[in-house]
Amino acid sequence: MKHTTNTPDNNCLFCRKEIIEKSFYSTKRFNAIYNIAPILPGHSLIIPNKHYESLFELTDEELGEMMVFARKITTVLKTVFGCDGFDWTLQDGVSAGQTIPHLHLHIIPRKPFDMPESNEWYSKIPVNEVQLLDSEHRARLSDDEYNAITQKLKKASKTLK
Amino acid sequence: MKHTTNTPDNNCLFCRKEIIEKSFYSTKRFNAIYNIAPILPGHSLIIPNKHYESLFELTDEELGEMMVFARKITTVLKTVFGCDGFDWTLQDGVSAGQTIPHLHLHIIPRKPFDMPESNEWYSKIPVNEVQLLDSEHRARLSDDEYNAITQKLKKASKTLK
Repeated sequence: MKHTTNTPDNNCLFCRKEIIEKSFYSTKRFNAIYNIAPILPGHSLIIPNKHYESLFELTDEELGEMMVFARKITTVLKTVFGCDGFDWTLQDGVSAGQTIPHLHLHIIPRKPFDMPESNEWYSKIPVNEVQLLDSEHRARLSDDEYNAITQKLKKASKTLK
Repeated sequence: MKHTTNTPDNNCLFCRKEIIEKSFYSTKRFNAIYNIAPILPGHSLIIPNKHYESLFELTDEELGEMMVFARKITTVLKTVFGCDGFDWTLQDGVSAGQTIPHLHLHIIPRKPFDMPESNEWYSKIPVNEVQLLDSEHRARLSDDEYNAITQKLKKASKTLK
């Protein structure tokens, strides 16, 4: 595993203190952040603290820990948003559609018939990643909306260990 | 974590001996199988031996092990198919688009410009899952094609520990 790029990068969105401070749940190594422009209600991101660009930069232990962390967050999201399923997706590398070069796993909690086709959300991910970067975009939540959801998720995450 | 459905289910495609025997790499708990109707060259599935329907049925240890296993297989796939990126996706629950009720992670190795839009493959997954079940479908590989790729992947996986 390479460990060459894990120092904070000021040019990286997911290294910025003001973004990481928006986490609704964090451990020493990982953060759960509500997506500012969710594809569906509940759409959140799991992001390591360290500036890992690729999944291949994590140690085996960190990789396992990230997925156990992601599963805990998925439980919270399913409960808070009343969902019975979920999608996980991870894009690693520019050719795979990764637009923010800091490892992140998408969690999308799902309900029956929440989209005309169950997989339609996938095609929206790259657009969504641009919205994260583009503060002019209209589909972003307002600060009040965002903070209300984050507070709700913080409260629901308090039981996590 | 629930552990109620992990005995083999004869009605389940991914519990069938003749499917699991097609694995190009296996450990005690997990199998790597080349997709009979790949969305892109290299498209493979990580499948637990036990009939777990959901990611939530795995123990923390099994979850970590599954992802470390998946990452090793991703290395092999990237090498064999000459790719520099990859997508992972997992659909958990009918509402999320899961059509085969046995946990499986999709790995799609990626190359620059392998699709007109980097995320186009996502929309093909549910169609592809039907192809897995539907032996009449024309997009499936022939036995010879399938066996040739599996042999190549078996050889490349020999160095895995």
